[in-house]
Amino acid sequence: MPNKANDPSKKSWIPVSADSDFPIQNIPYGVFLTRDDVITIGTRIGDHAIDLGALHQLGYFKGIPLTDDIFLQDTLNDFISDGQKTWRLVRNRISEIFDITNPILKENLEHQKTVLFTMEEIEMQLPVQIGDYTDFYSSKEHATNIGTMFRDPENALLPNWLHMPIGYHGRSSTIIPSGTNIRRPKGQTMVAGEDTPGYGPSKMVDFELEMAFITTDANKLGESIPIEDAEKYIFGLVLFNDWSARDIQKWEYVPLGPFMAKNFASSISPWIVTLDALQPFRVPSPEQNPEPLPYLKQEGANSFDIHLEVSITPEGGVPTTVSNSNFKYMYWTMAQQLTHHTSNGCKVLSGDLMGSGTISGHTPDSYGSMLELAWQGTKPIELLDGATRTSIEDYDTVTLSGHCKNEKVRIGFGQVVTQLLPAK
Amino acid sequence: MPNKANDPSKKSWIPVSADSDFPIQNIPYGVFLTRDDVITIGTRIGDHAIDLGALHQLGYFKGIPLTDDIFLQDTLNDFISDGQKTWRLVRNRISEIFDITNPILKENLEHQKTVLFTMEEIEMQLPVQIGDYTDFYSSKEHATNIGTMFRDPENALLPNWLHMPIGYHGRSSTIIPSGTNIRRPKGQTMVAGEDTPGYGPSKMVDFELEMAFITTDANKLGESIPIEDAEKYIFGLVLFNDWSARDIQKWEYVPLGPFMAKNFASSISPWIVTLDALQPFRVPSPEQNPEPLPYLKQEGANSFDIHLEVSITPEGGVPTTVSNSNFKYMYWTMAQQLTHHTSNGCKVLSGDLMGSGTISGHTPDSYGSMLELAWQGTKPIELLDGATRTSIEDYDTVTLSGHCKNEKVRIGFGQVVTQLLPAK
Repeated sequence: MPNKANDPSKKSWIPVSADSDFPIQNIPYGVFLTRDDVITIGTRIGDHAIDLGALHQLGYFKGIPLTDDIFLQDTLNDFISDGQKTWRLVRNRISEIFDITNPILKENLEHQKTVLFTMEEIEMQLPVQIGDYTDFYSSKEHATNIGTMFRDPENALLPNWLHMPIGYHGRSSTIIPSGTNIRRPKGQTMVAGEDTPGYGPSKMVDFELEMAFITTDANKLGESIPIEDAEKYIFGLVLFNDWSARDIQKWEYVPLGPFMAKNFASSISPWIVTLDALQPFRVPSPEQNPEPLPYLKQEGANSFDIHLEVSITPEGGVPTTVSNSNFKYMYWTMAQQLTHHTSNGCKVLSGDLMGSGTISGHTPDSYGSMLELAWQGTKPIELLDGATRTSIEDYDTVTLSGHCKNEKVRIGFGQVVTQLLPAK
Repeated sequence: MPNKANDPSKKSWIPVSADSDFPIQNIPYGVFLTRDDVITIGTRIGDHAIDLGALHQLGYFKGIPLTDDIFLQDTLNDFISDGQKTWRLVRNRISEIFDITNPILKENLEHQKTVLFTMEEIEMQLPVQIGDYTDFYSSKEHATNIGTMFRDPENALLPNWLHMPIGYHGRSSTIIPSGTNIRRPKGQTMVAGEDTPGYGPSKMVDFELEMAFITTDANKLGESIPIEDAEKYIFGLVLFNDWSARDIQKWEYVPLGPFMAKNFASSISPWIVTLDALQPFRVPSPEQNPEPLPYLKQEGANSFDIHLEVSITPEGGVPTTVSNSNFKYMYWTMAQQLTHHTSNGCKVLSGDLMGSGTISGHTPDSYGSMLELAWQGTKPIELLDGATRTSIEDYDTVTLSGHCKNEKVRIGFGQVVTQLLPAK
């Protein structure tokens, strides 16, 4: 069923530029505030946002089992709870409505006035109410880099790492959409050579280049999801910047993991790109050796070829791309992450968000954090204006972007843009 | 204002036995399903539950700024968002309505029929929708025991421990109320001497004796709460059993902390006892040396004398008390925990839950987990029927209870009761 909307020859009557992340094959979901100050659920084609609440009221989703107010909500959680079959019916219908060969809405200017917005007319919101947020640590290159820097280059990967997707719980209350600026966090740190810790603004604020997937209701308490079913509980993905304060992290994280070093903010891109839209970009994940235990064993192409990029823009300056990475570098797949997460009976709900962990590739220019790019401050990164960075400075803007591309179609995530303001 | 309802000489026209946890000085808050299958917010005196939604509809809260449906909800979150001033007005009004000298409801049998339920007529629910759940690690004795067992007896406490309340994020989707039974979790473990890990039912299921506090909306993203204001954002406390699988924990927890070892279930007592009700039981917390940094420094009596107890009941058997502990043993206070949690600008919301961490005292009979009580399996605990335990066995029921008591009044939390069923 998903393939109909993925047909790369399909065109929309809404104009879409060649380098747009949002052709008619994408159909992402988001939540926005309209020019009339109404919150609605919508999608996007080219540079137009489409009010799905209004489309539904006008009868365009007739025949699909949806409640009347399913899109007139301030989060996607209820729609996501409707499950994969409904997502696909809606996606295919949207694809039909905006198909260049379909005159119904194309020729109804009255309806178009109610339904279509330019991007300047709307304000994107957080697309889901995130119940629980989990962050994995699934890039082998990233885990190796961190182990090399902080522990032992000879045994950089800990013994458990190759056997399961290591993860930890994060804070959902501080996940914010692109465009929400953040403050440099204060915190407790121990300066090398000192006897006692101090409290003040972090001196080592960092980004982490990640992606995150959003789930639907997957299981009851005490039940596990088999690996072959896991993907059907994944609604879609966003770009994810897991802001980190390295000096706070270093002092606090043993033995219970990162806490205050991470929970001051994490930024996501506002449009959720569905797993269905990503199907043409399936690729195998890296070979897993040793072979995973049976509950985590998978056949086939279970990753996605998503090019990822990070840029830093100083106040009033120009962006410098500091990292080029790819989602396909992840050692553990999303299905393995989700299956492992429920392997003890842990309940997963609609709107839960699971981060990949920092996505680093093999080469230094593909590392997904300043900690790795500037190698603990020893290799400052030069910006286009000649300034250097070993971490993020006040008023810097960090932008993550990501897209998939083949000869026929480009499916993108847009960006997540966040400026770091000074500590309060 | 809170002291009026705390007057120990006050009596209710609802009968309360001498050993009840719920005299008229308590007035806890909970959510229950009534005999008519309606969900409502309520309180409890003696062995009667009181429907606050019905009381409000009958006009008993006239003059207090409350929305009409504030108690006709399936969680306390909105009421908790109303803030401390409103909590106190409602608490004092409930205290007046049920005062033995007040004839209004006492003599209105019609109203009583609508408002009062015996405990057998209702079914307690989870009292709040928990947005984020944080677990601290604030008992010095517990942290010392764990450090002694797993790391180095000579340096049992890690260097950061005495400088800040160490904590980590947990999973809110699997927090369940008393009476919800759980399944033995499966998971990945590494058996000593083996080369590769296995996956199967945990062989070391444990309880953790904790308490947890529930917050109201405390701050905006990027803002911190000063230590002297922290308590006014704490609504109340519950008993908290942080179920743990020690074999899963041991294999997974380095470097990012406990994850699958904990997130299969945590059980709470269903009645939230307010911080106001606990005022008569204020005691100083243990002396803090070294002195905390200024942002964590506190004067006065900032802990509470709450006796805590754990019992194990084998299937069809009798309960054996295996631990006697006390909330006052906690090294870090709740105010210090909450202030530290927001010290980087992390946003805290109504309905967030913060666990104390396992509460162990100085003596072995006051340890708060089987791991410590049976000292890693080396000192099996004998039950009254002659059986022994080093961890929790299938069909065992674990019960946590807690109360405060002085010459005049007893304020209790009831119990949190959970049976462990075999793995699926």
